[in-house]
Amino acid sequence: MKKVNVAIIGTKFMGKAHSNAWSRVNKFFDVGLEPVLKVACGRDPEGTKDFANTWGWEETSTDWEKVVTRDDVDIIDICTPTYLHKDIFIAAAEHGKQIFCEKPAALNYAEAKEMYEAADKAGVLHYLNHNYRRTPAISYAKQLIEEGKIGQIFHWRGTYLQDWITDPNFPLTWHLQRKFAGAGPHYDLNSHSVDIARYLVGEVYKVSAMLKTIFKQRPLPGADAGTFKAGTSAADKGEVTVDDAAFMVVEFENGALGSFEASRFANGRKNFNYFEIYGSKGSLAFDLERMNELQYLNLEDPTDEQGFRTIMVTNATHPYISAWWPPGHIIGYEHEFVHAVYDFLKAMENQTSISPNMYDGMKIMQVLEAGIKSSETGKQVKVSDIQ
Amino acid sequence: MKKVNVAIIGTKFMGKAHSNAWSRVNKFFDVGLEPVLKVACGRDPEGTKDFANTWGWEETSTDWEKVVTRDDVDIIDICTPTYLHKDIFIAAAEHGKQIFCEKPAALNYAEAKEMYEAADKAGVLHYLNHNYRRTPAISYAKQLIEEGKIGQIFHWRGTYLQDWITDPNFPLTWHLQRKFAGAGPHYDLNSHSVDIARYLVGEVYKVSAMLKTIFKQRPLPGADAGTFKAGTSAADKGEVTVDDAAFMVVEFENGALGSFEASRFANGRKNFNYFEIYGSKGSLAFDLERMNELQYLNLEDPTDEQGFRTIMVTNATHPYISAWWPPGHIIGYEHEFVHAVYDFLKAMENQTSISPNMYDGMKIMQVLEAGIKSSETGKQVKVSDIQ
Amino acid sequence: MKKVNVAIIGTKFMGKAHSNAWSRVNKFFDVGLEPVLKVACGRDPEGTKDFANTWGWEETSTDWEKVVTRDDVDIIDICTPTYLHKDIFIAAAEHGKQIFCEKPAALNYAEAKEMYEAADKAGVLHYLNHNYRRTPAISYAKQLIEEGKIGQIFHWRGTYLQDWITDPNFPLTWHLQRKFAGAGPHYDLNSHSVDIARYLVGEVYKVSAMLKTIFKQRPLPGADAGTFKAGTSAADKGEVTVDDAAFMVVEFENGALGSFEASRFANGRKNFNYFEIYGSKGSLAFDLERMNELQYLNLEDPTDEQGFRTIMVTNATHPYISAWWPPGHIIGYEHEFVHAVYDFLKAMENQTSISPNMYDGMKIMQVLEAGIKSSETGKQVKVSDIQ
Amino acid sequence: MKKVNVAIIGTKFMGKAHSNAWSRVNKFFDVGLEPVLKVACGRDPEGTKDFANTWGWEETSTDWEKVVTRDDVDIIDICTPTYLHKDIFIAAAEHGKQIFCEKPAALNYAEAKEMYEAADKAGVLHYLNHNYRRTPAISYAKQLIEEGKIGQIFHWRGTYLQDWITDPNFPLTWHLQRKFAGAGPHYDLNSHSVDIARYLVGEVYKVSAMLKTIFKQRPLPGADAGTFKAGTSAADKGEVTVDDAAFMVVEFENGALGSFEASRFANGRKNFNYFEIYGSKGSLAFDLERMNELQYLNLEDPTDEQGFRTIMVTNATHPYISAWWPPGHIIGYEHEFVHAVYDFLKAMENQTSISPNMYDGMKIMQVLEAGIKSSETGKQVKVSDIQ
Repeated sequence: MKKVNVAIIGTKFMGKAHSNAWSRVNKFFDVGLEPVLKVACGRDPEGTKDFANTWGWEETSTDWEKVVTRDDVDIIDICTPTYLHKDIFIAAAEHGKQIFCEKPAALNYAEAKEMYEAADKAGVLHYLNHNYRRTPAISYAKQLIEEGKIGQIFHWRGTYLQDWITDPNFPLTWHLQRKFAGAGPHYDLNSHSVDIARYLVGEVYKVSAMLKTIFKQRPLPGADAGTFKAGTSAADKGEVTVDDAAFMVVEFENGALGSFEASRFANGRKNFNYFEIYGSKGSLAFDLERMNELQYLNLEDPTDEQGFRTIMVTNATHPYISAWWPPGHIIGYEHEFVHAVYDFLKAMENQTSISPNMYDGMKIMQVLEAGIKSSETGKQVKVSDIQ
Repeated sequence: MKKVNVAIIGTKFMGKAHSNAWSRVNKFFDVGLEPVLKVACGRDPEGTKDFANTWGWEETSTDWEKVVTRDDVDIIDICTPTYLHKDIFIAAAEHGKQIFCEKPAALNYAEAKEMYEAADKAGVLHYLNHNYRRTPAISYAKQLIEEGKIGQIFHWRGTYLQDWITDPNFPLTWHLQRKFAGAGPHYDLNSHSVDIARYLVGEVYKVSAMLKTIFKQRPLPGADAGTFKAGTSAADKGEVTVDDAAFMVVEFENGALGSFEASRFANGRKNFNYFEIYGSKGSLAFDLERMNELQYLNLEDPTDEQGFRTIMVTNATHPYISAWWPPGHIIGYEHEFVHAVYDFLKAMENQTSISPNMYDGMKIMQVLEAGIKSSETGKQVKVSDIQ
Repeated sequence: MKKVNVAIIGTKFMGKAHSNAWSRVNKFFDVGLEPVLKVACGRDPEGTKDFANTWGWEETSTDWEKVVTRDDVDIIDICTPTYLHKDIFIAAAEHGKQIFCEKPAALNYAEAKEMYEAADKAGVLHYLNHNYRRTPAISYAKQLIEEGKIGQIFHWRGTYLQDWITDPNFPLTWHLQRKFAGAGPHYDLNSHSVDIARYLVGEVYKVSAMLKTIFKQRPLPGADAGTFKAGTSAADKGEVTVDDAAFMVVEFENGALGSFEASRFANGRKNFNYFEIYGSKGSLAFDLERMNELQYLNLEDPTDEQGFRTIMVTNATHPYISAWWPPGHIIGYEHEFVHAVYDFLKAMENQTSISPNMYDGMKIMQVLEAGIKSSETGKQVKVSDIQ
Repeated sequence: MKKVNVAIIGTKFMGKAHSNAWSRVNKFFDVGLEPVLKVACGRDPEGTKDFANTWGWEETSTDWEKVVTRDDVDIIDICTPTYLHKDIFIAAAEHGKQIFCEKPAALNYAEAKEMYEAADKAGVLHYLNHNYRRTPAISYAKQLIEEGKIGQIFHWRGTYLQDWITDPNFPLTWHLQRKFAGAGPHYDLNSHSVDIARYLVGEVYKVSAMLKTIFKQRPLPGADAGTFKAGTSAADKGEVTVDDAAFMVVEFENGALGSFEASRFANGRKNFNYFEIYGSKGSLAFDLERMNELQYLNLEDPTDEQGFRTIMVTNATHPYISAWWPPGHIIGYEHEFVHAVYDFLKAMENQTSISPNMYDGMKIMQVLEAGIKSSETGKQVKVSDIQ
């Protein structure tokens, strides 16, 4: 089997999820390329070594600019905070690397466009890791839609709710600062929802949005709590410069009326990525916290027998499942990453492209930026007006 | 027991639900007034007689203007299509009748304001039948909120979905014409959601909305299908002049960010009036199709033991339930009307007011009209700007 | 419309539910007979008068033996504790009355058989009120089974759980004494489950059971708490002579393997009458606490699209629903009684029989008595061996 | 880190799940031993080589008797069909190997007892892989019980339903033959339920059971379909010698009344391992198909606020979860095996024992054999009478 060398940049939550995926893909899926965990790159030398040790990365580095130029690296896997994506992505593209990049794409539409154009010009394979597309239930929803089983789509109702910052003493980490994260849940969570909506419904035409910061100041993280403000006192406070919640009403190009609601202030919801799709022939509903299930209503059933079916999407004939376990033996969050790595390697092997990629990232950022502009101006914004 | 005479105007779906409620209230609830079903008033003499016969209304009439002047009538119960509310309501008020009125209040804010002012001036008891407030689970949600168990409210997410007009051959009934209904689900369904939100969360401050008519033309109803276009051919089509769906993002005066999503195009949803409330101390969720249940998350539970509780709101100590059956023996849609009639009679007996009333109807119409204006102008609209 | 006179014997929980049903049936259902609430009969003269007053019973009596002989009474409605059923039922039959009788049928199989034979000999209409059969979802389940949509039935799993006596200080009411109740949840709850199982699956062939009394002594009810032990001190205890829980494994005559599990010790379950049916062509599940829903799996759906459908059994074309409200507007516990009264009156009008009746009551008691014998002897018991 | 060599015997479904677990444990959990995948042993040389290649087993063998004697093997991992467990287990014990063994333990109680005594005599670490105990939600249920939050347990209701053999043409694989499998779902599925019940509730005192074979004959598997009957024609049929379903009612030593219901004939249920526990202070419910959730009712909540809580058992403070992903990012079936391997290695490192082990296996087999005897004799059987 042909080996391909991976360099990962960023070693935190996503570093772990990606390392796991690169390690497992060949054990479960049949693809002609075998990823070699070549270099792990992070700011903190000790932490990076520990990480590399745990996951079997052969070398470590603290200098991503060198890593992206190495001849013995085929794939650059970007797992850093958002504000670093652009420079790494473009450098990787310019050095002809295949790119596997975490979401959200970038700090704004302009950055994402620049990144897409660089990759396009370089002719490299690029993938943006909106991992939820590769949840078997969502892949299967796509299949039902493509088979015509949903018909004309009337509505999309997407929500993504979490609750990890409802404590006012939760510190001002990088996620809560615009310069590092671009936006709050509007980027972090709505980007996922917009990706799924574009995948299943189509392009968004116009947007009305309200973004809201509920707690406007938060304690600065101390030396232990984060890397950006080391040395400050716990009593110091800084300004939250991103949204805590972002709600949008949209119209799609195909006429469907939709909504997106993202929040980190929904107590009791841990990772509640939920959507409903209503069509002329059928309807769908999905809940990430029960990600092995898809709700499906078929309007061709006799009227009195109609009802949302709870489909366990765990049959060998459902997407990706034949690689895993028997029906009813569920899979989890991390499996989506293995599916993504598998499809990425297949695309590399077959010299095809893969979705979502930075083109999609750019289109998603355009929708999200339309939302920000709508919230700021108090007006509807056509997505195509964001340039 | 003191008897009070009721005249009902309108004898269709709501006429049935109200008649049932007036008939049952004294059998289950303890109140010093006994409603007498005195006069049933409808356009169609034969249909009205049948209706009166079934429900035991003593007399019938086809002339509401006479009915509202009768000295032997204490209560006017208005169950007509929306466009008739204003004239009947104001006439009833001017003749000093106590008024029990169906929702939505009126065709617009101005009408509702006029109605409220007439009732206020006349000093009569007036009630607007947003019946869902008196679902025990919603009354109980109110109680939890008033006890401080939800804390500061961060979010309201309200949706009300039905599917009864997704067939393009569903005819152009009065519900689909602005002159008779004022609006589509935006009035019919969002009015309920706004009522519940005002009850549980507070006043709405500003609104961004999109209203959408999906099927712009529909067959005119034939002689059998409706009373407004009798004699037309089934092949004739007329223009739908109301929304088929209406989605809004709002900010409440207390800072909560919220959403309202109403549609008659959500296949598979029959009467899906659903909401979530997220607060600093607890969260709630309610689904009208499972109306005997309330979901409640208590943040004071030990962290690892937290989860949404499915409370069966059927204990004798839950609101209204002691009148009915033992725990777990559920009640249904019509019971809300009995509760409303009970509270109305109690208010009459005690010479107090009752909520929601036409003041609430006016405030609800203000929010809804802000939504229409927002959709038409493509701009956020402050509710207080609707005058 | 022809009037028929009803006498009710027993004025507590069931008296209320039955009175409500007799009062409402003609308002919602089309049947040629109109029940007149003629006589209410109870032990306590004052309580009986209050009851009659609330519900509109024309007369009261404390002597059931006279009531059953009255020429102006057509229907005897028996709502007493179980131990009184037999004498009243047989006397009513012998006087040619039509009989509407509460469940469980009797204290044992021999009594029920005697009752059945008396009614059969007298040629009167008799009905045993296992009301749950007339839940629209259960009637609809029957329809699916009769249409062949479930195929060969492999399994029945029935459970009926409540929690109203888990407090050891709950007093020794008549329900907990064999001489008055016959048995505990084994009669009260399993009788319902066996009725549904016989209706949907078929006759039970053999039984293995364990009955268990968890709290063997309880406080005697004081003067206020019950009528059977008036005057005793609250500190006095008496022996519980019925089961607190009763679990059975059974084989049906058609080969299906099944289970019945009833308990009053299932904290958190208020009225959890739940069953699953698994067949060669489809499967069903029902939960009384969500009684407007039926779960249905259709094996003829494409494999990957299969899943339990949550059918809202509230369409006008579903059983009994056209009399009530639009789709999604749910009904409750008491509606089953109206359906029963409707079918009873229709049978009376058409001079047909109705199920379940005392024949069914006899067969149910045979199964339950087989369960008691199995628990006592530690052996499987064939139902036909109970004679 | 100290390395320990593992030899795996059996390379099918369980071979895959175990290999994955041995490979992943050190990446997620902190333990002083590092398993080396030393030898994979299977009947079929080619298949075994492929398996070893995929999973990184260093060597292969077709002779388990040699493997268990190798000095360079520390751990024997038994993944074979049930009928081979005993000989391998005892040989491994006699050669001083640490043993990780799949369930069900053995063909009967006598075998399991012999195995336990051999391991006990040899003083080796032994573990029986009833993996579900190590589902975080079940481990957490144990914690709640040990903290006294459930109180006195009144009931256990366990069910385990699948549907993979409802097609009468499903062939006569080893699972359907007593000589290879011992029993059907009674061993395969009820063994899991009995393990969980013993873990959470306590020892079973007596049993009444019915086992049922629904399709008594099935096609013999052809050359491709199985290894036991190679060469037979597809038209040939053989006798099914195990149960298709097995239902039991039991009493526990602590007085709780319980049930166990296992079937492979429950169409629509893929891996429905579900249980409820009802206690004096709280109740629990668990569904393996939603294995990241636990339902918990706390009777110390104010009465009106009580309801089953849906706890997402994905907090870092829940059992095993800190090794994995953030709250709401669910894990799946295979993770239980990683937890088992982790605890096994920790026990090895700390020279302690682990549960469940072959003692538990013996006790489980005793309950199950009591069930078989009860079904055969038609009598209740005390578990202690099985010797």
